[in-house]
Amino acid sequence: MSKELANWSPLRRKLHEIIFEAETTEGRVFDIVLLIAILVSVIVVMLETVDSYRLQYGTLFNTLEWFFTVIFAIEYGLRIYCVTKPSKYIFSFFGLVDLLSILPTFISLVLAGTQSLMIIRGLRLLRVFRIFKLAHFLSQGQIIITALKASREKIVVFMIFILILVSIFGSLMYLIEGQSNSGFDSIPRSVYWAVVTLTTVGYGDISPVTSIGQFIASLIMIAGYAILAVPTGIVTGEIIKGAGVKKKLTESCPHCMAEGHDVDAIYCKYCGEQLNQ
Amino acid sequence: MSKELANWSPLRRKLHEIIFEAETTEGRVFDIVLLIAILVSVIVVMLETVDSYRLQYGTLFNTLEWFFTVIFAIEYGLRIYCVTKPSKYIFSFFGLVDLLSILPTFISLVLAGTQSLMIIRGLRLLRVFRIFKLAHFLSQGQIIITALKASREKIVVFMIFILILVSIFGSLMYLIEGQSNSGFDSIPRSVYWAVVTLTTVGYGDISPVTSIGQFIASLIMIAGYAILAVPTGIVTGEIIKGAGVKKKLTESCPHCMAEGHDVDAIYCKYCGEQLNQ
Amino acid sequence: MSKELANWSPLRRKLHEIIFEAETTEGRVFDIVLLIAILVSVIVVMLETVDSYRLQYGTLFNTLEWFFTVIFAIEYGLRIYCVTKPSKYIFSFFGLVDLLSILPTFISLVLAGTQSLMIIRGLRLLRVFRIFKLAHFLSQGQIIITALKASREKIVVFMIFILILVSIFGSLMYLIEGQSNSGFDSIPRSVYWAVVTLTTVGYGDISPVTSIGQFIASLIMIAGYAILAVPTGIVTGEIIKGAGVKKKLTESCPHCMAEGHDVDAIYCKYCGEQLNQ
Amino acid sequence: MSKELANWSPLRRKLHEIIFEAETTEGRVFDIVLLIAILVSVIVVMLETVDSYRLQYGTLFNTLEWFFTVIFAIEYGLRIYCVTKPSKYIFSFFGLVDLLSILPTFISLVLAGTQSLMIIRGLRLLRVFRIFKLAHFLSQGQIIITALKASREKIVVFMIFILILVSIFGSLMYLIEGQSNSGFDSIPRSVYWAVVTLTTVGYGDISPVTSIGQFIASLIMIAGYAILAVPTGIVTGEIIKGAGVKKKLTESCPHCMAEGHDVDAIYCKYCGEQLNQ
Repeated sequence: MSKELANWSPLRRKLHEIIFEAETTEGRVFDIVLLIAILVSVIVVMLETVDSYRLQYGTLFNTLEWFFTVIFAIEYGLRIYCVTKPSKYIFSFFGLVDLLSILPTFISLVLAGTQSLMIIRGLRLLRVFRIFKLAHFLSQGQIIITALKASREKIVVFMIFILILVSIFGSLMYLIEGQSNSGFDSIPRSVYWAVVTLTTVGYGDISPVTSIGQFIASLIMIAGYAILAVPTGIVTGEIIKGAGVKKKLTESCPHCMAEGHDVDAIYCKYCGEQLNQ
Repeated sequence: MSKELANWSPLRRKLHEIIFEAETTEGRVFDIVLLIAILVSVIVVMLETVDSYRLQYGTLFNTLEWFFTVIFAIEYGLRIYCVTKPSKYIFSFFGLVDLLSILPTFISLVLAGTQSLMIIRGLRLLRVFRIFKLAHFLSQGQIIITALKASREKIVVFMIFILILVSIFGSLMYLIEGQSNSGFDSIPRSVYWAVVTLTTVGYGDISPVTSIGQFIASLIMIAGYAILAVPTGIVTGEIIKGAGVKKKLTESCPHCMAEGHDVDAIYCKYCGEQLNQ
Repeated sequence: MSKELANWSPLRRKLHEIIFEAETTEGRVFDIVLLIAILVSVIVVMLETVDSYRLQYGTLFNTLEWFFTVIFAIEYGLRIYCVTKPSKYIFSFFGLVDLLSILPTFISLVLAGTQSLMIIRGLRLLRVFRIFKLAHFLSQGQIIITALKASREKIVVFMIFILILVSIFGSLMYLIEGQSNSGFDSIPRSVYWAVVTLTTVGYGDISPVTSIGQFIASLIMIAGYAILAVPTGIVTGEIIKGAGVKKKLTESCPHCMAEGHDVDAIYCKYCGEQLNQ
Repeated sequence: MSKELANWSPLRRKLHEIIFEAETTEGRVFDIVLLIAILVSVIVVMLETVDSYRLQYGTLFNTLEWFFTVIFAIEYGLRIYCVTKPSKYIFSFFGLVDLLSILPTFISLVLAGTQSLMIIRGLRLLRVFRIFKLAHFLSQGQIIITALKASREKIVVFMIFILILVSIFGSLMYLIEGQSNSGFDSIPRSVYWAVVTLTTVGYGDISPVTSIGQFIASLIMIAGYAILAVPTGIVTGEIIKGAGVKKKLTESCPHCMAEGHDVDAIYCKYCGEQLNQ
């Protein structure tokens, strides 16, 4: 326990433990209850936008909305109260998300149509990963994040290349199809088509109709085949590097200084000397 | 042969051998005949739902349906009769599937429209892998399953991330396109669109029409490019790890009999004894 | 030169060399001219099916068709004449393709509408890989083929699993959407939809319209995400295994018997003894 | 500084440094300003094709177009003036792109409708990678390019195979669907459909309607599943080979200065000298 915490009242200390730590039973219960509340409130916000449900359950949705907003507001207040450095929490990513997830309901009293912004509550679900911390999930997520971080520069280079490519392809198709196809009526729209095609999404809301257009589109798609392989290759490479590195002892043999011993090695595999474990 | 089996009548023992073992000729013939019967019965159930076929071959389909149901009911009875522990079989995955694949026909005598449920027979086709056991197929399937199991935690973390992502993207598009596009008339529908887009399925039943919507959609698709690479990377990494395990010496230590030494090891890493190379 | 060849007339020997070998200048010229002829004849067959082109260039197409057919018939005759074992060639894959690529034109004199079958000529283009033999292309193709062959069993297991999966998913969607959506009017059609969805093709000719249908479809798509990764992982694993094995000397050190030396090593990296190279 | 440069006037030398080098502050500022100018001019060309924007901001767009054209013309002149070998620059890839990006505006004075060709300016954005040179981005891009180059032959073999495959599939579907489906009215169009399907783009502008057509299409899609894995496997394999190169000692041999020893090497593998570990 830090020196600062020791000066706190027992209530504040207990609250800090429940809200910010997931190791104790109370902490875990709090986290799980909070997650369920967030999940239900997100579902309520979503269902409220469906006309048929709003007509039937409008009052219920409204009540639940205020209920969760009050709950989250209290939780927000308690977090500020029992955090070691309030300003650091308030301006952290989760601090801002927590604030933004309660504001829209209050603003909707003055301005109409802002309730949809409450969907920002969805971001609070990212807290789910705090609970998974206990179940080795975080380390798994860590491998993915590490792989994506390590691929960052390659991905950026790749993205710039893709952006230039779809601009060129889009403009080309605008020149070819623009006259006879209402879908390719401007370059930005043709670029949108190129993105839809190259990523193999292929809505079909815009598609080439002339023979030459379909021919060029076929070439773009086949080229996209090889291009699609690039980000997969990058990320796969990083994940294999991150996950597949066989753990080795960092310690070297005290006699022959050889390194690279397996973690379960007791004797040096090169000179037979016992390792210091 | 277990002690219990020895007390059985020869008929019951023979039946057990034919039905539950695939090593004998009779056992393999039984398995193959059963598989063909399941396959034909599944095709019959499927074709029966096509209007034109039902009108023409309705009576044939009905006869075949009862024929297979009776066959499968007898097989189910025999399985219970000649299994070592009937209750264990009845409540196993295949036991329940076997029961559920004969029930709908009988229930359809009382309630109409339940025949379609017979499609659950399709699950019985999973028995096909029992026969493949003989041809190294199972070990191949095992590698895939092991890889998927090892990726399980990473896949779950990834799925949760995807669910939060499509919620945010869907809500964003609802705010942008909701006014001018009947496809984005509620958040759940917009989330459905986000799933269709991010997985690169791209039906085109819902697609953005405003310039800003198409711009955001393009960004989502390009982001989806990198995201699509993640599960591929995870599974590929596990398959490579499972299949490409680092070569080890086949030789065991002459002193402590430990195995798994690196190919360049000179001394046993567990007891320090020199290896015979 | 084999004994049999030695008894042949010089013309027959020369023809054999030109037609079946790609190492001599004449052989390469023959192969390239043949490939161009096949390519042009395939394009002619394709363009002939386009109404506007057939009306305008019908006579030209007809003339070219007979021209190429006669050329290919002569080539077929010469191949039989100068091959060592005619029957082996005639019943080989390429022998049958060669025959089937000239038959339709002759049959069309009697029966109308068989010209389209001439597209089988496209298979003759596979001969292109014979020429590439000279440019290391074949060995590259070999790596792909070896990888696919090594993955064969895994792919078969995977395909059976996919077929069972799309049957179950298709039937499920038939039960859910069948009443309210003309696209899901039979199980075979719903299975077709499941294939279109799971492979992320997503035409959109059939798509769910009910809320529950869209929800289940979303789950199928997200599941398809992980499933899509499996064949990629399998093939990638095999390609890496086939191509990425670092070459090592098979020879061990004469002094310390250490193995695993790089191909350019002159001295043992463990004991400093000179290697026998 | 080369001998030739030394004879130049200080102005020309300074210009050379600013325009062709990115290491000095002026050089970097010049590159960044140039990139922004290119980006804005590309956006102007794109937006000009949108009817609503052209009507409203037509004059502004026209003015900006001439402004950027003059700027780029001056830049082009300066590049020729201060390059060591003008002819080499003029006929290089970037030299031709630089020329082609200013010509259309001047040609549009004589011929209408050539402005769209200015989109070729987009290619100038590839200069962005020059700036990234400073931030290790180029080496990352280099890994991708090296991987793609190493996969070149495999990709070509694969592409030829895909082209033959889509020709066969397209012709087959033309024979099956041609009578009853206006989408498959010629082989080239059916081949276009096969490309759209096999690459999993799936617009849905053409889709099979007959039962047998949908059945064959399903088989093509499932086959496409395994095929899609091939380019991914090829590129991933090369990226892993390129990036995951086995770690080597950074230390060189104290005797022969050879580098590239394995991390577990004790003696130099080239001269047998003991390494300093």
